[in-house]
Amino acid sequence: MTKVAVILSGCGVFDGGEIQESTFTLLALDQAGAEYQCLAPNINQMHVINHLTGQETDEQRNVLVESARIARGKVLDLVDAVPGDYDAVIVPGGFGVAKNLCDFALKGADMSVNEQVQIFIQALHNAGCPVGLACISPVMSESLFGEGVVCTIGNDEATASAIDEMGARHQNCAADDIVIDEANKLVTTPAYMLAERISEVSTGINKMVGAVLAMVK
Amino acid sequence: MTKVAVILSGCGVFDGGEIQESTFTLLALDQAGAEYQCLAPNINQMHVINHLTGQETDEQRNVLVESARIARGKVLDLVDAVPGDYDAVIVPGGFGVAKNLCDFALKGADMSVNEQVQIFIQALHNAGCPVGLACISPVMSESLFGEGVVCTIGNDEATASAIDEMGARHQNCAADDIVIDEANKLVTTPAYMLAERISEVSTGINKMVGAVLAMVK
Repeated sequence: MTKVAVILSGCGVFDGGEIQESTFTLLALDQAGAEYQCLAPNINQMHVINHLTGQETDEQRNVLVESARIARGKVLDLVDAVPGDYDAVIVPGGFGVAKNLCDFALKGADMSVNEQVQIFIQALHNAGCPVGLACISPVMSESLFGEGVVCTIGNDEATASAIDEMGARHQNCAADDIVIDEANKLVTTPAYMLAERISEVSTGINKMVGAVLAMVK
Repeated sequence: MTKVAVILSGCGVFDGGEIQESTFTLLALDQAGAEYQCLAPNINQMHVINHLTGQETDEQRNVLVESARIARGKVLDLVDAVPGDYDAVIVPGGFGVAKNLCDFALKGADMSVNEQVQIFIQALHNAGCPVGLACISPVMSESLFGEGVVCTIGNDEATASAIDEMGARHQNCAADDIVIDEANKLVTTPAYMLAERISEVSTGINKMVGAVLAMVK
């Protein structure tokens, strides 16, 4: 049975993992008959945002603990995950990716990826496993795959420019579609970086998961 | 355009709204071409559970504020919602329903429903609008619709007995199916009260949303 790692970055679009994108990823995997395991780094969130007001609060929350809300408790600390146990890895979006899994939200094109995330995804990539990145996650593409990797975050000019500046190659893409870099076995989809409707996100995530599973050896 | 109110009870299965059930409800509504508006009471959660360990924490979180995580910020305080603006109302599950929207988790068959929730749902019911309840939400059926109302939470014996003791009539139901009380225009589905897989939940929620929309005048 194909087993896919899904790396979450918290729970909530403004400071963590995008809930709907994460949920659709798990659904698409189950509907395709693949097994999934949610993973998250055991670190504090960059900050906590009141999602009603958009204001930062003085709370402190942990990425692994909050990710467990999406995963109904079944989430593994990324340091305890063995890359060889998995056939593919997917990272849904949400600002949590740009704040907790890497520091793109603070540093833009000068960003770097959390070491655990980098080691885990590169281990799978080096073993020939496909990778799926949704929403803002493709800003990590160059750090993970090197120069020339092709990806999409939709059509947001500032983010696309930063991706190009890092050395990856951004391609514009519709909200409900995907971009595939066959050489790197990387599938990306814009999701809520571009989507206005939840159904567009579902369609794009389904395509992304399907393309990732199709590339599993 | 049909407009449906979705009442959330927080964000996370053990102390709030079940994230996946809530997400599938919104998706099914959008896919059917219906408009939706998330609502939640502006009250503190009964408690906060660390979803990784299952342990209660000493934090305090607000049901409306946490529900905004699922709704991407677009959630309305239930007291500001006008029942006449909506054609139907749906309540996804999660322990948050039994802890924050009513007190079934504490009082079992002696429970009562949060006054704002009761007033809003009964206003729609009295206006002939259909109601959908998922997972544990149907424990509110007798309080909302009176004796003899037919509903399901799957096949959990203790919960089914409590429902019958209150004066409603529980029917066993498969995880991916629904029970319809035509007279009360009530549609219920077991979701994670019974489901073992996320795809079963999706199927049941889709059926529930479809049946609710089919009963809109």
